[in-house]
Amino acid sequence: MSTTAGQIIKCKAAVAWEAGKPLVIEEIEVAPPLAGEVRLKILFTSLCHTDVYFWEAKGQTPVFPRILGHEAGGIVESVGEGVTHVKPGDHALPVFTGECGECPHCKSEESNMCDLLRINTDRGVMIGDGKSRFSKNGQPIFHFVGTSTFSEYTVVHAGCVAKIDPAAPLDKVCVLSCGICTGFGATVNVAKPKPGSSVAVFGLGAVGLAAAEGARVSGASRIIGVDLVSSRFELAKKFGVNEFVNPKDHDKPVQEVIAEMTNGGVDRAVECTGSIQAMISAFECVHDGWGVAVLVGVPNKDDAFKTHPINFLNERTLKGTFYGNYKPRSDLPSVVDQYMKGELEVDKFITHSVPFSEINKAFDLMLKGESIRCIIRMQD
Amino acid sequence: MSTTAGQIIKCKAAVAWEAGKPLVIEEIEVAPPLAGEVRLKILFTSLCHTDVYFWEAKGQTPVFPRILGHEAGGIVESVGEGVTHVKPGDHALPVFTGECGECPHCKSEESNMCDLLRINTDRGVMIGDGKSRFSKNGQPIFHFVGTSTFSEYTVVHAGCVAKIDPAAPLDKVCVLSCGICTGFGATVNVAKPKPGSSVAVFGLGAVGLAAAEGARVSGASRIIGVDLVSSRFELAKKFGVNEFVNPKDHDKPVQEVIAEMTNGGVDRAVECTGSIQAMISAFECVHDGWGVAVLVGVPNKDDAFKTHPINFLNERTLKGTFYGNYKPRSDLPSVVDQYMKGELEVDKFITHSVPFSEINKAFDLMLKGESIRCIIRMQD
Repeated sequence: MSTTAGQIIKCKAAVAWEAGKPLVIEEIEVAPPLAGEVRLKILFTSLCHTDVYFWEAKGQTPVFPRILGHEAGGIVESVGEGVTHVKPGDHALPVFTGECGECPHCKSEESNMCDLLRINTDRGVMIGDGKSRFSKNGQPIFHFVGTSTFSEYTVVHAGCVAKIDPAAPLDKVCVLSCGICTGFGATVNVAKPKPGSSVAVFGLGAVGLAAAEGARVSGASRIIGVDLVSSRFELAKKFGVNEFVNPKDHDKPVQEVIAEMTNGGVDRAVECTGSIQAMISAFECVHDGWGVAVLVGVPNKDDAFKTHPINFLNERTLKGTFYGNYKPRSDLPSVVDQYMKGELEVDKFITHSVPFSEINKAFDLMLKGESIRCIIRMQD
Repeated sequence: MSTTAGQIIKCKAAVAWEAGKPLVIEEIEVAPPLAGEVRLKILFTSLCHTDVYFWEAKGQTPVFPRILGHEAGGIVESVGEGVTHVKPGDHALPVFTGECGECPHCKSEESNMCDLLRINTDRGVMIGDGKSRFSKNGQPIFHFVGTSTFSEYTVVHAGCVAKIDPAAPLDKVCVLSCGICTGFGATVNVAKPKPGSSVAVFGLGAVGLAAAEGARVSGASRIIGVDLVSSRFELAKKFGVNEFVNPKDHDKPVQEVIAEMTNGGVDRAVECTGSIQAMISAFECVHDGWGVAVLVGVPNKDDAFKTHPINFLNERTLKGTFYGNYKPRSDLPSVVDQYMKGELEVDKFITHSVPFSEINKAFDLMLKGESIRCIIRMQD
């Protein structure tokens, strides 16, 4: 047991006091984990669009003050009663969604949408007792998606902790907590392109590039990137993208452009923007008879997906995925192993790195569209 | 070789001279098969809604005079040049869609939508030379979906002929040419329910009952029939349907009724009506995480499938199928074998039987909703 087990830990955390205002590094208190919880020492965290989205809190329920952050790697400091799958000292990735192991989703081979621990962006407290483990001068500070990794220590539900190979570099594999697995899994677990096939990827941000990486690893021969920003093509080549379409360059709908390029449509399409028009295009650009389109990007509340039903009758498939269909605890260790074997290339997603004290720089880089992933070094 | 090979055959056929007018049994001439064609002696044919639909020709391109019919069983009378997979005397089922064996669809494991022989309801001639093989007093009579089985002899493209076990009773297995395979295959080949799972079937006509039969054979434990006519439940029990919902009996949308019955949704749904509202309900009634909905019913030209994209993101799948994803030549023999082994029960679909001279009675029975399948005995 660590000497801090069972004690309150004082440490630094980056607190979002208000929507859209720079985070403030504060000394906070982190309570010990209760039954079924794990306290993690975070060594590296990275910034994802979802953090920025809930920090801006436009059209969202504002939950402040809050500790954001959900892509991270760390070491188990202590565990609450009944936690057996990890122990102090284990290397682990916290995940914004979880795996209770008991619900119908966890028991189904096909689902990773745990009834108990499915992402809940409005909840700012622990699921067990409805309270926060974070406070400053007695004032509670809210959690974010069960992870809150912009803190030197955090408390998470045990079902949201994946134990990984201790040899894996945490400053690299920390990005597997969210975006990279989301895109990579959408391709390898859901779209499942065959070697030699064609794949269209809509949106060349981190998730889309990870979807392209999945197509590359699967042996797809044509990987068509679709994005409104043509300059992204150059970078995307590193992720296997070998053809590019900017819908703005064409008078006809992009699905028709892609169908013409591919003799009737691509074998697979993966939609990573969340734009409803891109979702429709991604579905309508797959080949009849065997085409599969996979939706990844999160739509707006009022969107409606609309297409002629004959597009389905002609033997096309449309699926959606959440976190690349990975079950966090069960599957993440093997994704880390894929990285360790050199199959999945993670380093190329990491374009920047800053010390914890400069965490707001990571926000600036993302808002300017300059970074794919910026690592935040908690101990620097 | 039969003595008629290479000769014109005079025989009886039921000719549709005009839309919606009773068929007239005429003596017609059937030309010999050209290269890549097969002439079949039809022994039994059955009536399907699609025949009635194109006979009524409401909103369709009228193609008259025409010999309708596409569910049938017969014996190969003679074959044209280059035909090797069947020979005179073989028992065979003609199919309204085909398998050329050469196109990307035929070469794909996933598709049965042959580029060359995919159903074409407007075409009334042979694909090889653009001419009809049927005539009366020199006047050509048009073909229907490449089969025209309401004739004692018909000529079909070789890619549309499935050779079957000669021990199989043609007066039973003739119904596998269309509707029964369409529904049965939608469930067993596309929806693929697991043993013990729940399946909702929308529409309890012949195709829907065949979809239910597929669920029964797959070992589904809850098979929920959905139909606007409550009296159909009684009959549907024979096909494994063990629960029934009439959307008219509820104030809330049927997808909500089903979700409440099944703790969040069914594992699989199969839509066999073609109603756009039923398609949307079938999709929205499947469980998140693993639910799969399969569209079978043919929609109207102006329909739009519309749903909130979050329904996909929550890991639901929507697929369409054509002819139950069976490749006619490759797969139909094994469906016949399933019948011969007693796995797939076909006899219960056959509710009526009439001699060829009374073919118009079969139309009356179907229009009154009294029959599932009425067999027409060509030699009586």
